[in-house]
Amino acid sequence: MTVELVQQLLDGDRKALTRLLTYVENGYPEAREAIRDLFPHSGKAHIIGITGPTGCGKSTLTGALARELRKRGRSIGIIVIDPSSPFSQGALLGDRIRMQDLTSDPEVFIRSMATRGALGGLAAATNDAVTVLDAAGNDVVLVETVGAGQDEVEIADTAHTTIVINIPGAGDDMQAIKAGILEIADILVVNKADLPAANSVAKQLHIFMSLDRQEGWTVPILKTIAHKEEGISELLDEIGRHREFLATSGRLEEMGRHRARRQLLTITKAILLGGVLQSVEENGTLDKLVESVATKDIDPHSAAERLIESANG
Amino acid sequence: MTVELVQQLLDGDRKALTRLLTYVENGYPEAREAIRDLFPHSGKAHIIGITGPTGCGKSTLTGALARELRKRGRSIGIIVIDPSSPFSQGALLGDRIRMQDLTSDPEVFIRSMATRGALGGLAAATNDAVTVLDAAGNDVVLVETVGAGQDEVEIADTAHTTIVINIPGAGDDMQAIKAGILEIADILVVNKADLPAANSVAKQLHIFMSLDRQEGWTVPILKTIAHKEEGISELLDEIGRHREFLATSGRLEEMGRHRARRQLLTITKAILLGGVLQSVEENGTLDKLVESVATKDIDPHSAAERLIESANG
Repeated sequence: MTVELVQQLLDGDRKALTRLLTYVENGYPEAREAIRDLFPHSGKAHIIGITGPTGCGKSTLTGALARELRKRGRSIGIIVIDPSSPFSQGALLGDRIRMQDLTSDPEVFIRSMATRGALGGLAAATNDAVTVLDAAGNDVVLVETVGAGQDEVEIADTAHTTIVINIPGAGDDMQAIKAGILEIADILVVNKADLPAANSVAKQLHIFMSLDRQEGWTVPILKTIAHKEEGISELLDEIGRHREFLATSGRLEEMGRHRARRQLLTITKAILLGGVLQSVEENGTLDKLVESVATKDIDPHSAAERLIESANG
Repeated sequence: MTVELVQQLLDGDRKALTRLLTYVENGYPEAREAIRDLFPHSGKAHIIGITGPTGCGKSTLTGALARELRKRGRSIGIIVIDPSSPFSQGALLGDRIRMQDLTSDPEVFIRSMATRGALGGLAAATNDAVTVLDAAGNDVVLVETVGAGQDEVEIADTAHTTIVINIPGAGDDMQAIKAGILEIADILVVNKADLPAANSVAKQLHIFMSLDRQEGWTVPILKTIAHKEEGISELLDEIGRHREFLATSGRLEEMGRHRARRQLLTITKAILLGGVLQSVEENGTLDKLVESVATKDIDPHSAAERLIESANG
């Protein structure tokens, strides 16, 4: 079944693509099988991460970027990381409306993914979804993420080129500094550049970025007005320039190894824990130790050591 | 050495406290020993998490809350989770200035912690830091976090009462909805309540919160102007009410077990991975498998299985 689905995907079947992404999102065993078969077909797409604080116009910018890419004849997969919560449906709907014209284009595939789930689960699922969209033959995969936490840093590990969006803020001129996400940026965008404080934000960004240089790459700071599609063509040119830099400097290979190591270790941890849990859940040791930690009779570290002993013994 | 340090901490020595927190932050082996000894002395403090989007006035609110707690005679430990980045020093300085008057108070202890480090490392380190401040005899531990990602959700696991701050936003009326952090709130605060859109934000929050009720607890929505210390006394009253609710409803015990389970599993994973890595790093298998994943010769899941086989064989 999975073999067929993989073949259909490689043949360009969108339904197969949709189904595989559902497997990935839900962590079905079929997803693992499919990823194994698709993996050798991946590695050709340019993966672009787009992040920034809430309200910065990420979805609008992603949509505008996708339209510009289509003008240049590229096929695109878009993953919107969507915090799964009773409140997210409005936001999701908003995102979809901003990209509605794109959904009918056969060379554009848009998918929202929920962030609910196990620790580290989002990064793993996102990696797999990128592999699927990459193997499906898309020239570019855009990954749009909300917020500015650990998630974004992990997803920057997946992307070749990470775009961090800033806007003239509410009270603070610089919204993103505190969040510490500037350092993951390969390209900085000041969106809503028609707002009065845009120039001062751009200036501040220039000062901050001068503190933290990537070897051989100066992070460009671009102004856009995404809803008017202004500055988007220039942004895409910079993305192309960054891609060139990665390829010629050897950074692309280095990133590939870094990402491979991280994926490998994340999955290894999950398998190891699964093995231990199976036996200690059955024999009741897990519940007993949880209770002892909760009542402060044993500290969590000593309890973890006992748990592992119990699983091995 | 650690035994002495633990005793000094229990005797109220601030230098010992500072040193232990440094051990925790850097993941020194002494930290583990100390936590083991301190663990039975912890569990008395009320732990309050404070989060919200950047620019919402978290630090100002945390400072105001600390001052109000001092008026009521409580001793306080404050942990400011500080994204470690070349850009964070300004923010950190800002936080410290907002709390400067508090630093000379012997019943207030303020500590910034960096978020750089291993995956899951922040949550583990924060848990340990809370244990240290709790065992040191503080009545209240405030944990202030930046942003709205996975980190905040994990830290909500540590806190008894989580306060999520919103402000009338830039463009969007509601800044936090997309980030999906409303659902971790026990108390919602609309800060900067003197801004024109404050009432409409509070109304929207009321509508959203009516979708997602905690059993037995209606999330209150409070307006504050933190820099004028307005609404802070009311906020502290609500925190007290929430604490009462937790104690009388049995939720406090339930949270303790939940937290114990999570800590136990996180540490178990770290120990298991450490054991595997030691052997596969030495024999070169790890590097070989990373290379094979990077060159797409093997998918990460199959590689993880081989890695574990190699460590066991």
